[in-house]
Amino acid sequence: MSELTKEIQALREQVSALHAELVRYGLVVWTAGNVSGRVPGHELMVIKPSGVSYDELTPESMIVCDLDGTVVEGDLSPSSDTAAHAYVYRHMPHVGGVAHTHSTYACAWAARGEPVPCVLTAMADEFGADIPIGPFALIGDDSIGQGIVETLAGHRSPAVLMRNHGVFTIGNDARAAVKAAVMCEDVARSVHISRQLGEPLPIAPADVDRLYDRYQNVYGQR
Amino acid sequence: MSELTKEIQALREQVSALHAELVRYGLVVWTAGNVSGRVPGHELMVIKPSGVSYDELTPESMIVCDLDGTVVEGDLSPSSDTAAHAYVYRHMPHVGGVAHTHSTYACAWAARGEPVPCVLTAMADEFGADIPIGPFALIGDDSIGQGIVETLAGHRSPAVLMRNHGVFTIGNDARAAVKAAVMCEDVARSVHISRQLGEPLPIAPADVDRLYDRYQNVYGQR
Amino acid sequence: MSELTKEIQALREQVSALHAELVRYGLVVWTAGNVSGRVPGHELMVIKPSGVSYDELTPESMIVCDLDGTVVEGDLSPSSDTAAHAYVYRHMPHVGGVAHTHSTYACAWAARGEPVPCVLTAMADEFGADIPIGPFALIGDDSIGQGIVETLAGHRSPAVLMRNHGVFTIGNDARAAVKAAVMCEDVARSVHISRQLGEPLPIAPADVDRLYDRYQNVYGQR
Amino acid sequence: MSELTKEIQALREQVSALHAELVRYGLVVWTAGNVSGRVPGHELMVIKPSGVSYDELTPESMIVCDLDGTVVEGDLSPSSDTAAHAYVYRHMPHVGGVAHTHSTYACAWAARGEPVPCVLTAMADEFGADIPIGPFALIGDDSIGQGIVETLAGHRSPAVLMRNHGVFTIGNDARAAVKAAVMCEDVARSVHISRQLGEPLPIAPADVDRLYDRYQNVYGQR
Repeated sequence: MSELTKEIQALREQVSALHAELVRYGLVVWTAGNVSGRVPGHELMVIKPSGVSYDELTPESMIVCDLDGTVVEGDLSPSSDTAAHAYVYRHMPHVGGVAHTHSTYACAWAARGEPVPCVLTAMADEFGADIPIGPFALIGDDSIGQGIVETLAGHRSPAVLMRNHGVFTIGNDARAAVKAAVMCEDVARSVHISRQLGEPLPIAPADVDRLYDRYQNVYGQR
Repeated sequence: MSELTKEIQALREQVSALHAELVRYGLVVWTAGNVSGRVPGHELMVIKPSGVSYDELTPESMIVCDLDGTVVEGDLSPSSDTAAHAYVYRHMPHVGGVAHTHSTYACAWAARGEPVPCVLTAMADEFGADIPIGPFALIGDDSIGQGIVETLAGHRSPAVLMRNHGVFTIGNDARAAVKAAVMCEDVARSVHISRQLGEPLPIAPADVDRLYDRYQNVYGQR
Repeated sequence: MSELTKEIQALREQVSALHAELVRYGLVVWTAGNVSGRVPGHELMVIKPSGVSYDELTPESMIVCDLDGTVVEGDLSPSSDTAAHAYVYRHMPHVGGVAHTHSTYACAWAARGEPVPCVLTAMADEFGADIPIGPFALIGDDSIGQGIVETLAGHRSPAVLMRNHGVFTIGNDARAAVKAAVMCEDVARSVHISRQLGEPLPIAPADVDRLYDRYQNVYGQR
Repeated sequence: MSELTKEIQALREQVSALHAELVRYGLVVWTAGNVSGRVPGHELMVIKPSGVSYDELTPESMIVCDLDGTVVEGDLSPSSDTAAHAYVYRHMPHVGGVAHTHSTYACAWAARGEPVPCVLTAMADEFGADIPIGPFALIGDDSIGQGIVETLAGHRSPAVLMRNHGVFTIGNDARAAVKAAVMCEDVARSVHISRQLGEPLPIAPADVDRLYDRYQNVYGQR
């Protein structure tokens, strides 16, 4: 088995397993939502097949596509969001993973076209800023991918709320993208609920900077 | 075993298993809610027994009725909503499955008699329009069935919110009806939460059309 | 084994198992909440021990008390709400089961001292009326029991929201009381959410009567 | 095996298992949140490792630190909140356990800097008062620990909502701290929801006193 074959196999296993995290955290219903991972050093990605139940996802059912979204390995059609994932990988070379959900509270902000304000320390840690709104874009061409890249380029946040649609997140790898999707829904929910009974207190921008810097560089295991 | 016996047995298994999806997505409590499927090519349907716990449902406990709601096979009484399911099958020949729940957010809109506005792309995909409100109707005769059929006839939405009651959904088969019930609660929830803090932005009708058309014809596996 | 011993053993098993339904439907956290059942034809009841984790409840750990709340069988202290259960059994001879929870939405109405209006057909079915508010009452004597009995005497509803406290439900047996607790939280939640964005439409009192009558007499298996 | 080694091993098992309660009650997502326990009679505590998934926590992966937060046993870095836990143990000798979460409703109150008013009997039982707000404090030195201790010193509540951050709870042991975290989210949720549709009725201070006294001294098994 070549190195590339081994890498693709490992990524099939990781991406398949990460879909279960979307289910565990209640970010998806039925077959909505998808995760992909870039094959490091190759113009390839591994992504969910379209319209397949989360119960039936296996490493073998994952689809390997090139970065134009053309299927390279796999019997099923890839996710209908494949073009958006591919666009992100082509235009953001540091991105190794992408996740997409219609999670409830993220969609609630997205439907109003309002960014989630950074009023919780956990949000400063992970997002380092407000979670921004991307444009309304139809599926079927590069519009969604362009909207994601234009919104996130130069932004600290790994999450964008696409207007009237849902959330796309990016990360160094697929796991980091899924973590950002989980944290996005968590803070979108807490901030929404806080605002139901008044206005959350702001965090000073310099404190947001300090929290973001520390979390990115000190938290977790080295 | 005749072809019909085999078909009924397969439908007993499918309809029984689909009830577990209502539980999984939190659409039902205790014994409320029910799913049915039409036996293709026959004037028969398979439906849940009345007042039986979801834990105890088996393919064998499902009830076979004719399309007047008379029991053909089964020791138990059929769902108290059997007349409504039967009315739908008699008057909508393209319908192969019906689901009914009192899911929380759908009921919240239904109690106010307000349609759910189509402000999310996932809603345009599945429903192609607002989710409409049906009339207030008492159980016990054809009133509920009539209200469902009159509201959904000529409407893209496979879901109707019956006023002060709950949601009925239709589909090509029982699985599609259950999917519509899951998606109905999901979008009813997201749109409700969005509206708690302001007004969701509309999606242009032409974009709703494009999304609906693509999802119905391109999404999933062919 | 005498008939009484057998009956108590069966009730220990039923009451123990019904506590798992409180957990399943999210009506309780930690050790809060309790269920009891009357031993038919005897001045005895079976009830949860106080402050024991739901994971550790077994038929053997249930406590048998007389209807003054004195322990007859069992090594542990009975539920701190035993006096309230006992009072209900002494004063409502038709009651065979009692349940008590601090479920979230029921508590939300109880904290404001507002009855839940009967605006859903499922609520008309099970409660036949608004879910009423009982008085504020301290634990430690018969005050809670009196408040329950005075509020529910002559009322169709098997549930009472004790002000600033939580819900008590009654039934022909322990299972019916638990069902009422599950349905109470379900409708308290749906009606609350409905009212967040406007006023639910009323159901005509004569229709509430028809729904209640039919559900009590026709629904389920005979 | 020395007595101390046995005690540390028992505490590793307890603290590891208590993290599963944070997951069970939905108080944490991904790797956020942590629990610690003091080694009775020693200047030591057992705490979660930093950034490790809840699925992977084992007694062996727990970290033993001294009360300055220096690692004594363990290959991983301790929780990034270790300094706050250590500060509490140094300054509150009666405290045997500390828990920390970003649970949703607690964060919603914390983001507005508003205490949760004591309007439910279950809240009077466990907290004996409003749940207070602590100061905004950055991670990285003793600021968070100081804020916790200054807020809780002389207060009945075992929980403090740190502004724009989350909840810290204390207890006689780690289990009591986790219980307080569970109850804190439960009452923060019920009171929030109650206030969405009006103002909860107050409980007279003398009744709060009576409830608190009874629950602390009579509830549960002796």
